[in-house]
Amino acid sequence: MNSPLMLACPVPFQTTSRVLLGHGSGGKLSAQLLNDVFLRVFRNPVLDRLEDQAILKIGGMRLAFTTDSFVVKPMFFRGGDIGSLAVHGTVNDLAMGGAEPLFLSAGYILEEGLDLAVLNRVAESMALAAKDAGVDIVTGDTKVVERGSGDGIFINTTGIGLVPDGVNLSASSARPGDRVIVSGFLGDHGIAILSEREGISFDTPIESDSAALHTLVRAMLATNQTVIRTMRDPTRGGLASSLNEIAASSKVGIELSETSIPIREEVRGACEMLGLDPLYVANEGKLIAIVEPSGADQLLAAMRAHPLGANAQIIGTVTAKHAGMVTERTAFGTTRIVDMLSGDQLPRIC
Amino acid sequence: MNSPLMLACPVPFQTTSRVLLGHGSGGKLSAQLLNDVFLRVFRNPVLDRLEDQAILKIGGMRLAFTTDSFVVKPMFFRGGDIGSLAVHGTVNDLAMGGAEPLFLSAGYILEEGLDLAVLNRVAESMALAAKDAGVDIVTGDTKVVERGSGDGIFINTTGIGLVPDGVNLSASSARPGDRVIVSGFLGDHGIAILSEREGISFDTPIESDSAALHTLVRAMLATNQTVIRTMRDPTRGGLASSLNEIAASSKVGIELSETSIPIREEVRGACEMLGLDPLYVANEGKLIAIVEPSGADQLLAAMRAHPLGANAQIIGTVTAKHAGMVTERTAFGTTRIVDMLSGDQLPRIC
Repeated sequence: MNSPLMLACPVPFQTTSRVLLGHGSGGKLSAQLLNDVFLRVFRNPVLDRLEDQAILKIGGMRLAFTTDSFVVKPMFFRGGDIGSLAVHGTVNDLAMGGAEPLFLSAGYILEEGLDLAVLNRVAESMALAAKDAGVDIVTGDTKVVERGSGDGIFINTTGIGLVPDGVNLSASSARPGDRVIVSGFLGDHGIAILSEREGISFDTPIESDSAALHTLVRAMLATNQTVIRTMRDPTRGGLASSLNEIAASSKVGIELSETSIPIREEVRGACEMLGLDPLYVANEGKLIAIVEPSGADQLLAAMRAHPLGANAQIIGTVTAKHAGMVTERTAFGTTRIVDMLSGDQLPRIC
Repeated sequence: MNSPLMLACPVPFQTTSRVLLGHGSGGKLSAQLLNDVFLRVFRNPVLDRLEDQAILKIGGMRLAFTTDSFVVKPMFFRGGDIGSLAVHGTVNDLAMGGAEPLFLSAGYILEEGLDLAVLNRVAESMALAAKDAGVDIVTGDTKVVERGSGDGIFINTTGIGLVPDGVNLSASSARPGDRVIVSGFLGDHGIAILSEREGISFDTPIESDSAALHTLVRAMLATNQTVIRTMRDPTRGGLASSLNEIAASSKVGIELSETSIPIREEVRGACEMLGLDPLYVANEGKLIAIVEPSGADQLLAAMRAHPLGANAQIIGTVTAKHAGMVTERTAFGTTRIVDMLSGDQLPRIC
């Protein structure tokens, strides 16, 4: 809930011997799984950066490389489908590293009995999204599992991009005084999926914001790349989880101003009705930028001049105090802690 | 069946409006799905090459890029598991393009309720296989689906490698007179999986041949890279499917000599018992090379000097006649057509 007087009360963290839906939430359980299972055994300097994309030095170039699997339910939703989302999600993970997206792979796991018309519709949507984003899908793979061992279509996309000279973004680069900018309204994707799934209808239907953000990033880098410390797209786990990751990596505090955070009235209303906090709800066409204070206004103007950044806002400041913690100054002047997501709000959101 | 007097009688090809297990077999249905659904919408010059890997020109370099999802059942089998297989499979797809494998991504789709001890065991096996192969897993993703919407663990690995100067392999490069070399015994992986799945035990247990082939490829390229036309690893659909793809791409015939094809007695026996043709059974640590006749003996000697090629054999010749077709001269002097796999022999073999 986003009630201004309520202080967040983190759920006690549980250990478990089984995989829970919350392990896929992008919150605390995801971080625990990453640390305890994967980082423990795969440890290497590239992976240890913990960015949304690996940056690989090959020859004289810096390649960005990122992977994402998509299991969103339902497959089709207002504003997109699993195919377009699979393109946007991976393009965005490349773009958050400042990379120009170039190529995607596509790996499908299909469930026996899937209607081929559905697969065609998804493939067509994926092809259109790739064409719109200017990336080529250059290699692929298809596996089929028995009825009941999958769920229609799962898609993995893995992307390659090229990081331009001079661009050096890192979640560990935020410094006290930096401004936190968000590119537009938060929570649209999560609420669109949830309303589809639960059959809830609103007076003003809420569409997913699923979009490829690399042209917005290009415009931002062209304006003044040196003032941008880091960028993240707040997908699973929402704004709260992305900012907590940055606060932890940079060993800084982040203080948000509730009244500055752009959230549509419909989304705010849906969240209150459903008992969700919009700061934890997934976005698929929004970015957060942490920006040197001197360049923040200029960058904000550049973002607002781009269709995908028209509703961009400065929503907070990086602080020296409360290192590793995100707080929110509410409309009533109180302060609440915006912790990492505990448990799972919305499974299979992407 | 591999009965020497039996002529293959291809099953009439059926059209369907639903995804069948056979669409994942690597045979005719897979090719139809690729053509009718994916190539139709994703068409571009890199994808249209239809190799096991995309070759991307970025800067002055040629990058190999390939993706594979792994859904093998059971997850653990004699000679490997889904983790090691996910590394070997993608390393091999890079190596078949002559590339030095460099980096892998790892995308997991986990089923709610999975025992974390099982996930740990798979991750450890994957890390060990990557270390042994000299590749780093540099980026990853984990999704969780509800109980009954997945099947334990699915893994996507996507790989990046670097193609050395002067190496130009293509399935369309085979020419009449070329020799067909296979690096060792065929069918081990498929029979190992099947015996595990069906609870069949043999006097001599059959192990999967799952292995990373890039050091064998490196030795072959070092010996004489100019005589190698193309390489394939005969996984799903086996030797028959890989050779049919080469015959079709190069518009040549391929004539195999049954008595030269290395198949373990135990595998041959298991195939006869189970009604399988070993030429269609999956391998995960074998390669086929099509080689200029002048260099074939030298290359064969180099392969036999490598542990993964110790049982390499010249098994056939590329012909001008029967373009697009693979035939086998049997031990009895008859000739049979070795068509693409129709339907599905062994679902979820990789």
